[in-house]
Amino acid sequence: EDEEEKELRQRFMAPPVSGLRELRRRRRELRSRMELLIMETQAEVCRALTALDPGASFAVDSWERKEGTGEPRGRPRTPAPRARCVLQDGEVFEKAGVNVSVVSGLLSEEAARQMRSRGKSLKAKDGKLPFCAMGVSSVIHPKNPHVPTMHFNYRYFEIEEADGTKQWWFGGGTDLTPTYLNEEDAVHFHKTLKEACDKHDPKLYPKYKKWCDDYFYIKHRGERRGIGGIFFDDMDSPSKEEVFQFVKSCAKAVVPCYIPIVKKHRHDSFTPEEKLWQQLRRGRYVEFNLVYDRGTKFGLLTPGSRIESILMSLPLTARWEYMHTPLESSKEAEILEVLRNPKDWVH
Amino acid sequence: EDEEEKELRQRFMAPPVSGLRELRRRRRELRSRMELLIMETQAEVCRALTALDPGASFAVDSWERKEGTGEPRGRPRTPAPRARCVLQDGEVFEKAGVNVSVVSGLLSEEAARQMRSRGKSLKAKDGKLPFCAMGVSSVIHPKNPHVPTMHFNYRYFEIEEADGTKQWWFGGGTDLTPTYLNEEDAVHFHKTLKEACDKHDPKLYPKYKKWCDDYFYIKHRGERRGIGGIFFDDMDSPSKEEVFQFVKSCAKAVVPCYIPIVKKHRHDSFTPEEKLWQQLRRGRYVEFNLVYDRGTKFGLLTPGSRIESILMSLPLTARWEYMHTPLESSKEAEILEVLRNPKDWVH
Repeated sequence: EDEEEKELRQRFMAPPVSGLRELRRRRRELRSRMELLIMETQAEVCRALTALDPGASFAVDSWERKEGTGEPRGRPRTPAPRARCVLQDGEVFEKAGVNVSVVSGLLSEEAARQMRSRGKSLKAKDGKLPFCAMGVSSVIHPKNPHVPTMHFNYRYFEIEEADGTKQWWFGGGTDLTPTYLNEEDAVHFHKTLKEACDKHDPKLYPKYKKWCDDYFYIKHRGERRGIGGIFFDDMDSPSKEEVFQFVKSCAKAVVPCYIPIVKKHRHDSFTPEEKLWQQLRRGRYVEFNLVYDRGTKFGLLTPGSRIESILMSLPLTARWEYMHTPLESSKEAEILEVLRNPKDWVH
Repeated sequence: EDEEEKELRQRFMAPPVSGLRELRRRRRELRSRMELLIMETQAEVCRALTALDPGASFAVDSWERKEGTGEPRGRPRTPAPRARCVLQDGEVFEKAGVNVSVVSGLLSEEAARQMRSRGKSLKAKDGKLPFCAMGVSSVIHPKNPHVPTMHFNYRYFEIEEADGTKQWWFGGGTDLTPTYLNEEDAVHFHKTLKEACDKHDPKLYPKYKKWCDDYFYIKHRGERRGIGGIFFDDMDSPSKEEVFQFVKSCAKAVVPCYIPIVKKHRHDSFTPEEKLWQQLRRGRYVEFNLVYDRGTKFGLLTPGSRIESILMSLPLTARWEYMHTPLESSKEAEILEVLRNPKDWVH
């Protein structure tokens, strides 16, 4: 028992929902392997960020507590379906969150309707569709305008149909939102993702790079949110094992694609004007997330969903100026050009 | 000609779209009277704000220019369908905009569909529905957290159906968003609006007060955006003349309901903590406007609409903190209570 607790503390930010023993017993099942992968990814990313911002530490919020009962805090009761790690107002990071969620139950009518509208045929047994969903998601907003914001999310979904067959798919992606363009960083970021994809199939990176540019589009501005990365959903071929291996490669690429960029720029000097431009770009981030992001919109419309977790993706601060237009040939105009016309960073 | 220009400058912030002579010639028509009312309201509000913030001045942006032709600026060419007055980063006001818009043309398929879904039966002639829409709208975000944000909008809509009959309606409202609750101010604001309504029908204020509380509801937070005011739409009875007189009373009440509150508090001292709470409340303002506001959503989805005008309602700066919860019995908790459970301020 003590050994297990020690191992938990070393490997994860919070105990896995399904329990370490149960995960070990069912270690060949993909669900267990995915749960371990998302927990490990959370821990890896949090540790890498903490190493760069030693003064700050992640607040871990991972247990379901009976609110308002006055019971002593901090003592684990039931493992919660969600483990949130949040860092706010550090030296390097303004706001960083890495969330894990593992839930199962019966699919709501509304969720089933939405999935069918995306082309899934779901045959329910007595109107019931047991499902299991798990994922890790994160947004990192640094303070320095020369360090880009990064977002990633990897998730797995499983639904049991009337005849007992299981529908399953993976989704996810990693993308970068710089305030200023640094071509070297953009190439490093995309190259690292491309290498992760290419190990599995050379067709994946170009396809998911384009999907990312298309998804993170702020239509009313005619701009992308950032310089992209990869994005995919409903991935269910060639096989469960192969897709899992692909997702694992992507998740393992998060730290190497982003952390070197933070290291390189975290002590860069910057002007008040550069900070201001960062704040205006943060405004666009808010616009994308509140107006277009599928996950955010779904969360806001779902009764009982945890608003604080859904809106954790928003920056600490943002700014909107009426009719702000960067000067021609400025560094601000340079990034806008790339947001309007996405580039291929690796060939 | 010179006399007319002089009069224009004295009475308005920008020349009326339809031209002063034309408006005079057709002075009995409701369209002309409404156009004058919205232009006068714009000028009244801008002047009142300027008087309180003498260092700042409104940038007026009212002419359609051929962009990029290198023609000298500032010379009127065609009166534009919109006149925007924007003040940014003044002493008292962080961001204040008062926009007027007068447009006519043929209703788009999408707009007609939306109106029919709101219960209007619109019989088109060869699929065409000529319309005319005009309105004044404004959001005032002050710097001092003890001065509330105010929003108002008054508009008129006319559609010509196949048989030549005209459908028409008015809409509008005025509402207040304080950072901290000041009961005296809340009562003054609501009382002034109630008096404007009561002159026409004592049923109007209670009905439109409730409509306002219902409309400015941030569902995912369980809070209203502010402490309300009045809000109405599709108002088309008892008669065009009577509704216009009601709207006129409301428009004339904007300055007396808001300006005394600004005067009273613009020099109040405040702490960094109070400024921070204001920034968090501004975040909620952004959430309401981007996620729920009908006008904003419609604007963002309409191709070719002017994004800068639509998003002028957003504050200059906003903030999102993960899991910020005010202390019990604090001033922050006091306003939250009222936003969660709207009060009747006048009886």
